[in-house]
Amino acid sequence: MTDSKKENKILLAHGGGGRLTSHLIEKTILPAFSNDTLDKLTDAASLDLTSASVCMTTDSYVVKPLFFNGGDIGKLAVCGTVNDLAVAGATPVALSLSLIIEEGFDIDTLEKILASAGATAKQAGIDIVTGDTKVVEKGAADGLFINTAGLGTRHENADIDFDRVTKTDKIIINGTLGDHGMTIISQREGIKFDSPLQSDCAVLSGLIADVLNSGANVKFMRDPTRGGVAAVLNEIAAASGFTIELDEPSLPIDETVRAAADMLGFDLLDIANEGKVVFVVDEKDAGKVVDICKNHELGKKAAIIGEVLDKEESPVVELKTKIGGRRIVQMPYGRDLPRIC
Amino acid sequence: MTDSKKENKILLAHGGGGRLTSHLIEKTILPAFSNDTLDKLTDAASLDLTSASVCMTTDSYVVKPLFFNGGDIGKLAVCGTVNDLAVAGATPVALSLSLIIEEGFDIDTLEKILASAGATAKQAGIDIVTGDTKVVEKGAADGLFINTAGLGTRHENADIDFDRVTKTDKIIINGTLGDHGMTIISQREGIKFDSPLQSDCAVLSGLIADVLNSGANVKFMRDPTRGGVAAVLNEIAAASGFTIELDEPSLPIDETVRAAADMLGFDLLDIANEGKVVFVVDEKDAGKVVDICKNHELGKKAAIIGEVLDKEESPVVELKTKIGGRRIVQMPYGRDLPRIC
Repeated sequence: MTDSKKENKILLAHGGGGRLTSHLIEKTILPAFSNDTLDKLTDAASLDLTSASVCMTTDSYVVKPLFFNGGDIGKLAVCGTVNDLAVAGATPVALSLSLIIEEGFDIDTLEKILASAGATAKQAGIDIVTGDTKVVEKGAADGLFINTAGLGTRHENADIDFDRVTKTDKIIINGTLGDHGMTIISQREGIKFDSPLQSDCAVLSGLIADVLNSGANVKFMRDPTRGGVAAVLNEIAAASGFTIELDEPSLPIDETVRAAADMLGFDLLDIANEGKVVFVVDEKDAGKVVDICKNHELGKKAAIIGEVLDKEESPVVELKTKIGGRRIVQMPYGRDLPRIC
Repeated sequence: MTDSKKENKILLAHGGGGRLTSHLIEKTILPAFSNDTLDKLTDAASLDLTSASVCMTTDSYVVKPLFFNGGDIGKLAVCGTVNDLAVAGATPVALSLSLIIEEGFDIDTLEKILASAGATAKQAGIDIVTGDTKVVEKGAADGLFINTAGLGTRHENADIDFDRVTKTDKIIINGTLGDHGMTIISQREGIKFDSPLQSDCAVLSGLIADVLNSGANVKFMRDPTRGGVAAVLNEIAAASGFTIELDEPSLPIDETVRAAADMLGFDLLDIANEGKVVFVVDEKDAGKVVDICKNHELGKKAAIIGEVLDKEESPVVELKTKIGGRRIVQMPYGRDLPRIC
């Protein structure tokens, strides 16, 4: 029994580039992702794209805990990078996936995470085409970190640029705020609610393709992950020079998430989402974009949540509150929420 | 003084996606890599390639120590991924670079590492076009891990495939074996030699382009990193079905590296290189490839080190020793050498 138990843990040699690395790749990694390109195990994946106009992005994932309600680090590592391609106006084509594993990590757990990443990639219609595995000694990493990089081709209707944002544009989000972040935080704090929180972790490329294919005049998109909607809107305000007004009563918020945020003292505008996209849309197309979102399973609670006001020397994000007051929505400082993704 | 010292360390908030993340990106990361694509700070870099036939690769770097004679983790993270593109027959075009940083990491040290990565990328003629920064709490990582992913366009002369390997092909390497691995190991063990060991960490895309541009019939290439030349040749033998014979007296080996390996009980065939490429070349072009290598600063000690023998049911890698004996060169197990790259 001892031997078989030992064999089910990651050893340093699994990262050494020798026989055990080959074994791990063949028995644990390839089965999760198998496709013609990856299976060749060349030093670099060879791809024939439909266009030479491409987008490239990367993210490392260090989320804690590795499994959370609504997802896990594997699903997140695919969703996050696919979404970064999609909001840049690209059709996702291929992903790389690289593992940094702590010695002693459970191989069954690794298999579950990789299966989840593979299933998410399949659902998104994207292949994981190349990868890498490193193992560090016990104590030199916290379980498992995953990096993914993504490659996509530019969507012909996409013209996504801060410079296109202008007065009267509408701000749209495809659903409720803060679900991912509050799920992670509550789970870490060990707080339970009557109706359980669930991360919104999801692949947005389908919904975004629907919007772009409609020909709607989308000026800018970004997924409000770390730093939340507050960070995204502050980035748009700073880069475009326009003040943005948010309408508090219009913000879609799940009641349990709101209760959790109130209890723990968080502003949901600052909290990470993993299945949300903020659109800046020409006002004449705003209704259409909301309708398209509502017709997609990931956009049922889509809403116009604000609009672009005047150009200013010091543009800000303002929240028009329920009781008619106004407050500035700051760029979050970032301290409170490590390892949310 | 306390405040300014504190400010020179990475805080968790540097990875939070808020103001401190923006500050780190603007003050520390962009200066090292600045280029038109990266400076836009979009969710994904937008690139217009010269071809839609591309290669993509990734590696995570966990080398310990972070600085070693001949390089550092930043230089290594660029060289390693550029080299993976080059040996796949691609002209490197763009890199992503993603950081996982331990809370408390020294920002001046980070700047040195990023400057080194930036200088190496510049020298290789490749832009770092997108990136990511995560911070994990003290103890959850060992200082700094870097992931790079690479994108390249396929070289028109490249036809690199295990299937093209055949009897009488020659095995060529562009220089001495094991310099990188023995440098890292000796430094970790605190062993000093009269003439210091130095990693061969280098960008190989220029040398490989010279070889491909010559029209030489290169059947296969791979960089012998983790697992060394032994792993690469075993992979070629297994995938092609041909036994490979290595000629021990022909192996280029630095005398100090040999002494270090003898002292520490390592076989240099198993040891990682970071500036070497193993070519499998049609015998009629072998002399030409060696000459091209010798005309490049990274190939002065290039040599034909072996040849492809018969196709066999259980193909092996055989070493013809100095004294005329023969031994099987096994696929290394991998246990002894964690965090070599």
